[in-house]
This record gives sequence, structure tokens and C-alpha cells, in this order.
Amino acid sequence: MIDKEDFGPITRSRRRATITSAKSETVKLRNGAIAAASDLKSGPKARESLTKNLQLNEDSKQKCDRYDKISCHRLQESMLSSASSFKNYRGILNWCVVMLVLSNARLFLENILRNGILVDPIQVVSLFLKDPYSWPAACLVIVSNIFILVALYTERKLAMGSISEKVGLLIYIFNLTIILCFPMVVVLKLPSITPVGGAYALGVYTILFLKLYSYKDVNRWCRERTQAKARSPSSSSASSTMQSHVSYPGNLSLRDIYYFVFAPTLCYELNFPRSESIRMGFLLRRLFEMTYFISNVLSIVFQWMVPIIRSSMKPLQEMDYSRMTERLLRLAVPNHLIWLIFFYWFFHSSMNFVAELLRFGDREFYRDWWNSETITYFWQNWNIPVHKWCLRHFYKPLLRRGAGKLLSQSAVFFASAFFHEYLVSVPLRMFRLWAFMGMMAQLPLAWFVARFLRGNYGNAAVWLSLIIGQPIAVLMYVHDYYVTHCQDDPTIAEAL
Amino acid sequence: MIDKEDFGPITRSRRRATITSAKSETVKLRNGAIAAASDLKSGPKARESLTKNLQLNEDSKQKCDRYDKISCHRLQESMLSSASSFKNYRGILNWCVVMLVLSNARLFLENILRNGILVDPIQVVSLFLKDPYSWPAACLVIVSNIFILVALYTERKLAMGSISEKVGLLIYIFNLTIILCFPMVVVLKLPSITPVGGAYALGVYTILFLKLYSYKDVNRWCRERTQAKARSPSSSSASSTMQSHVSYPGNLSLRDIYYFVFAPTLCYELNFPRSESIRMGFLLRRLFEMTYFISNVLSIVFQWMVPIIRSSMKPLQEMDYSRMTERLLRLAVPNHLIWLIFFYWFFHSSMNFVAELLRFGDREFYRDWWNSETITYFWQNWNIPVHKWCLRHFYKPLLRRGAGKLLSQSAVFFASAFFHEYLVSVPLRMFRLWAFMGMMAQLPLAWFVARFLRGNYGNAAVWLSLIIGQPIAVLMYVHDYYVTHCQDDPTIAEAL
Repeated sequence: MIDKEDFGPITRSRRRATITSAKSETVKLRNGAIAAASDLKSGPKARESLTKNLQLNEDSKQKCDRYDKISCHRLQESMLSSASSFKNYRGILNWCVVMLVLSNARLFLENILRNGILVDPIQVVSLFLKDPYSWPAACLVIVSNIFILVALYTERKLAMGSISEKVGLLIYIFNLTIILCFPMVVVLKLPSITPVGGAYALGVYTILFLKLYSYKDVNRWCRERTQAKARSPSSSSASSTMQSHVSYPGNLSLRDIYYFVFAPTLCYELNFPRSESIRMGFLLRRLFEMTYFISNVLSIVFQWMVPIIRSSMKPLQEMDYSRMTERLLRLAVPNHLIWLIFFYWFFHSSMNFVAELLRFGDREFYRDWWNSETITYFWQNWNIPVHKWCLRHFYKPLLRRGAGKLLSQSAVFFASAFFHEYLVSVPLRMFRLWAFMGMMAQLPLAWFVARFLRGNYGNAAVWLSLIIGQPIAVLMYVHDYYVTHCQDDPTIAEAL
Repeated sequence: MIDKEDFGPITRSRRRATITSAKSETVKLRNGAIAAASDLKSGPKARESLTKNLQLNEDSKQKCDRYDKISCHRLQESMLSSASSFKNYRGILNWCVVMLVLSNARLFLENILRNGILVDPIQVVSLFLKDPYSWPAACLVIVSNIFILVALYTERKLAMGSISEKVGLLIYIFNLTIILCFPMVVVLKLPSITPVGGAYALGVYTILFLKLYSYKDVNRWCRERTQAKARSPSSSSASSTMQSHVSYPGNLSLRDIYYFVFAPTLCYELNFPRSESIRMGFLLRRLFEMTYFISNVLSIVFQWMVPIIRSSMKPLQEMDYSRMTERLLRLAVPNHLIWLIFFYWFFHSSMNFVAELLRFGDREFYRDWWNSETITYFWQNWNIPVHKWCLRHFYKPLLRRGAGKLLSQSAVFFASAFFHEYLVSVPLRMFRLWAFMGMMAQLPLAWFVARFLRGNYGNAAVWLSLIIGQPIAVLMYVHDYYVTHCQDDPTIAEAL
């Protein structure tokens, strides 16, 4: 209806004519909250010109007041037009959240009415464990501590100078190779590990691999710097930018390395920026989100996706294309919702929760990939920890060693494709290269989008590749898994 | 993946250390496209400090390059946190459009597969017409021209001074009263008018009422101004702000009044701002949107809403509350989607289409109501033509006559509630006051939201009131319509 800021000036005094000109200056700023602020700011200006106008007689002013309202239109574009520069759509994000919560509430109510809750807690647990008395994935995670200790021990020896750089590098190569191979062998050979448990363990080991690689690099750079300083004390300007609280050999403690292992980053640093204190409200909100979204994903999987996947097996086996497309589009929506919820759950709720607990200051775990108008922008901004790691420890060192830009970029993409395949194929015990090909297909797609689509069309293309691309890969793996594991085993087919 | 702007500096020259400091200055600006621009802007600055550093020897610079990367974290909040000031979510809007188009495509494919298209063109036409040879709604719209001509003729007489202001006012009161009463009587008495046809005709007459009221006021203000000018030539400053191409009596032409009748605004003005030319691409895009969204709404209504409404009649009659709530939540989603599509269709596509055809310059048909954190902000910004009219011709004149602010605000709300009821009750031929009460309920709701909820929570409350509030009113009317019309007539029940 009608708000105070819009009408206040009129009742207080009749200074419409002067206000209109002041307002037209601030009109370009008008977006939501800023508009109100700028209206208030124009107050003093309007008051100033009011004092000038006081000479005019009362009657003519009263008339003026009406005449300036004779023209009340301005040449301007609609906010939703691409020609307007308005971009504030925070409300649309809230709308998505409200719709998600509401549709979940409706589903919940419907379930109670039908008296059939399809989410089965035992089935959820069975995704992680086959035998409740053997926890192979958890054991694997516990074993990983050995590799952390090896890295710390090696660094201490290197710092003391007991072993040479070459020996240190050899130990690291050995350690890092084992980190990647050991869990792979265990997951492939141990039949009691479920695909979900295996993927979890491999994920933990992959993260550890990236972290220890960064740990190695940064400590080596620190040693090189100390040597450079010892040689030429003139270059102290470089160190002054650091403002270190902890300097090189002092960081090689158990406490420091474990802080890094648990911190939500893949890039090691001697002095992480720390936040002032732990905000309990923030922590509790993130914890609530974490539990709520897990229940949300579970209900989407069991109430929505499993029935579709089950019904799409027959068309997939018979290669009935029109029916396959229909199922694929049907699967795309819940799959995409799960991916979005997973993104929020992992990159916002969980990482912020851990960061808040550890008072880790840098919360940039993602950037505004939702606005990305090119595929490239999406890959650069949706996963900042990995992007930062790739930049710092892979791409730039390659450039420094004289590799070309195109070669380095392709190498990064190739490594990324390798890890995607590693994290999917090994737990499923199937080597089909769908994930690898999905990653490599991004290169021609990125070229196409950048070449032919701009602005909102480019953004729509990025969304479309996310919504359609993923379920194709998922459906491929599910189909192959079904064909190899379930067709001859009716009990597993039943469980799926 | 990796983009040129991020890595260019490194390969060209090793000026990392200086760039980092320049970057940290611009980091606060970082939101989407601006980020890239600010990175580019920091270029010259970085280049300047590069020339200073040229004195340092090559070797130590190469080392520096690595050391500054030892610290790569910054104290900052996540973008989705409410603590961050980031607001650019244009991509989420595109996401909503992509999801809408995709789910529609899936529905279309599913229909073809099942070979049962539920959208029936004859049923659509029958919403508007009962008898294909009598077009009562269209006739009503044609008759409305009489009232336009009466208004123009009266204004001409007033301008010439043939009739006094008082007589002119009397003619206007008579004319405007008939505009509201005549179609009401016709719709209530003529059984061949369908509810949809009746609502359309009443909508056209209501718009005409508001337009002619504005026409009357502005012309009167113009006359008053001419008189004031004649009396005191000193107050020429008021007229100089106008820069009129057409001045007062010159605007009283048939061409001018019909331009105003077709223009997408309710506020009359002598010289509307005009756009340069008709952009054909823009026109065609709006036309495409208009046809696409009509088909979209039809498919939502027939494939989604009608089955739910049909199945919710029984619980509504039996007052089975848990089932009623479940149906209500189920109905809320398609109802809300239709409202959103309608909003875009009417306020963006159609109004922009008409404005582009007429080269009407002011395209502000709505403001960013999607970000509204109070109910008040929503009502002020979702329908700018009506809001502007209420301000200019109802609220401010009331204030000028000495009415209090609260009284004037309540009067505007009351008038708005009256028109809502008028546009719903008359076509349905049922006086239940649900729409009236729905509008009046906004007042305590607005107070509650403004008092207890802030920021994103307030925004979520506004969305919730839109998503839940509307279908309650719709369900009420549908229920009453069903009970009075269909229960004893099985053929209509079948059609519904």
C-alpha cells in the first residue's frame, strides 16, 4: 500500500516541485533498499531549495504542487528487460527455498495420509554398511592418519637438513602414490565395502592427497625463501608483506598439520586468517540446515527418483528412444534438485559449519557460478577450494616450467577428468569412462557456448548442460550397474 | 576451468606481488561481471608498480613470485550468507525459466506418449462463449467507446467555457457511475455471459473508469494552471519544468484520448515520453512470450489444477480438515505458478508489447516486488500503474483536503478491496466477500510482518502469504460456485 517515505514530504510542507528534480537525479540508483536510502538523502537538498522558494506566495505554491504532477512518466526500461541493468534477485532465491520447503511439507503430509513412508532408515544405513560389525570405510579413514604423520615427519627432517631435498621428494612421491592406490586396491578387493562407503573413503583420500601435495609445496617454498634471504638480505620487501605470526620451521607441529587437515581448504598456508569468535547462532543455523537438507535429499531419492529409475530400466534395455528421453527428462529434475541441495549442503552449510568451529576466516567456498554465462566461468567458480588448488599447485607451476597455456589448461582438465572417473568407477567397480568423457566433453561445449551464446542465453545454456548433462551420465552408470549386478540377482534388483 | 584474465599477468611478466595488493582493494566490488571489470581496471596500477620493481634482480623476483602465494586466503564471508552484501541472482531467475520450459517439454512428451492431450481447444473457447453467435463481452467492450467520447466532448466544452466547472463535474460523475454500473447490470442480468467473459468486460470497464478519472483531473489541473498564470505571471518557473510539446487545449483531440486509452498506463499526461522507434526484435520476442505463456497456463490449468480441484470437492463438502490442508498445499503450487506466469505475461510481455507498438517510453510497469521484505513494499511495487494512479488521484487529493494519513491509507485499501470484490463477485454472480476480506486481511498481516520479521525472513513471509493466501480464496470461490451451480446440474459438474 502506501509507505511513509513516499508521502512524508507532502504533508510536512509543499515542496513537491523541487523534490521532483532531486528525485530524478537519484532515480538511476533505484533498486530495492537503495531507493529508500537515496530518497532520504535527497531530503536536505530539497529542504535547501525549500527555503529559497519561501518568497513565493502561499497560493501559487499550492498550485505548483499539482502542476508538476501533470507529467508523471519517465523514459525507462522494465526491470526484467535485458536492457535494464537491474540484477537484484535475492527474493527469487528465497522463493526457491520457500517452494522447496512447502513441497516437502506437502509430501510429508501426503505420506502420513497414505500411511506409507517410503524412506526406510535401515535401507539408508545399508547404503554404507553391509555387515553392521565390519566398518571397512571407517577403518580406511582411520588408517589415513599414517600418511599425515609421514608427511609431517618428512618435513621435520627436511627442515633440520637431515635428509636432502631429493630424498624428501622421493618419500613424498612414494607417500602420495600410496594415498591414491591403497584405498583403490582395498575398495576393489574387499567385497564388504558398499559403493557409497567406498566413494566416501576415496573422497577422503583424494582430499588428503591434494592437501598433502599443497603442504609439501608450501614448505618447500618456505625453505627456498629462507635460503634466498640468507643469500641476499636486500629482498626483505617480500617477507614484509607476509606479517607472519608463525614462521617457517615453527609450523611443523602436529597441531598445525591437523588444523590444516580439518580446515575447509585444500591450500596450505602458515597463518590462516582466523575469525574473531565462534558465533553460536550461525553454528546452529548451519547445523539445522545440514540435518534438514539430508532429510530432504533422502525423501527426494526414495519418493521420487527410485521409482523413475526402476521404471526406466526396461526402456533402457530395449533402447526405446522416445521413452528413454521422457524418462531422462523426468529424472533430470530430481537429480538436479539433489545436486543443488548437495551443493548448498556441502559448500555452504557444512563448510561454513566446520570453518565456524575452527574459526577459519576465509569463507569463499564458491562464487556466483549461478550467473555464469560461459561454461568456463562455471568451472572456475562453483568449487573454489579445488579451483584454488589447481591454480596454485598445478597450472602455475606448469607455466613456470615453460609449458604452454593451452597445454597447461588441457592438463588441468585431464587431471580433473581422471579424479572424477576415479571417484565413480572404483566404488562401483566398473570402468566405463562415462564420467571421464563427461568432463572432457566440457571443452567443446565451453567453446560452443562462448562462441555462439551471450548474456542470459549463455547462462541458460550453462543451466541446461547442468540439468541435462548430469542425469545422462547418472543414467548410464545406473543402467550398467543394473545390467551387471542385478539382472541375475533378484534380491539386489528388489533392493534397488 | 581456467580463463585468460586470471592467468594472463603471470605469463606476460612476473608482477604477482604487486597485483595481489591491488586485487585486495577491488575485492569488495567483486560481484559477477563487475569483478572482471575491476580486475581489468587494476591493470594500469599493477603495471605502474611493475616499472618500480624492475630494479630488483631477475632471480629474486622469480622467488618473490612464489612466496606471495604462500598466503592465499582472505577473511571473508560466503556469498549466500546474509552477512555478505552480494545480491546478484539473475542466474536463479534464468534457472526458473529453464526449469519451467523443461517441465513443460516433458509434460508435452508424456502427453504424446500416452496419446491423451487433456487441453481441449473447444473447452477453452467455451470459457469465453456460450453461444458462438452471440458475443456479449465483446459487445460490451465496443459500447465502452461511448463513454470515452462523452469524456472528450465534456472536456472540449469545459475548455471553451461553454459549461461551468460544476456542470462538467456533474456530467463526469454521471458518466463514471454509469461506467461502473452498466456492465455490472449487464453481466448480472444476461445469462449468456460466461464468468471469464464477464470478468474480462468488467476489467476493461474498470481500467476505463480509472483512465477517464485521471483524464478529468489532469485537464482540470491544466485549466487551473492557465488561470493561475493569467493572474500572476511571476510563477513561470513551474511551467518551464514541463517543456511541453502540446499545451492544454491542444490535447483535446480524438487521437490523443485514444492514444491514452490504449497506452499501458492509468495516469493521463499531455506529453507522454516516447521511445525512439519500434524495435522489431523486441516486439517479436514479447509476442513469442505472450503466445508461449498462454499455452503454458492452459496446460497447467487442464493437466494439473482441474484434477486437484475435482478431487478436493469431496473433502471440502465434508469439511475433512487434514485432507483439505493437503489439497490446499497441492493446489497452492500450480495456482502460484499461474499467478507468476500471469504477472510476467501481463506486466512484462503484454504491456511492453503494447508500449513498443505505441512507442510509449515509460516501461516501469512493476518494480522489484520479488525482493519485498514487507507486505507494504509488495503492494507498492507489484502493480505500478494502479499504485501510481492511487497516489496521484486518490491518496494525495485526500491529504490535500485535510484528511489524516491513516484515514487516507485505509480509504485506498478499502477502494482496492472494493474493486477486487467487484471483479470477482459480479462475473461469478456470488457475493461472498472472500476477495474483499482477503484484501482487508493484508492490513493486520502487513503490521505483523513489519513488526516481527526482518530481511530474508520478511521476504519469505511475503512469498508465503502469496503462495498460501491466494489458493485459499480461490478454493473458497470454487467451492461455493460448485455447491451453488454444479451439485444439482450433472452436466456442469462434468465440464468442471
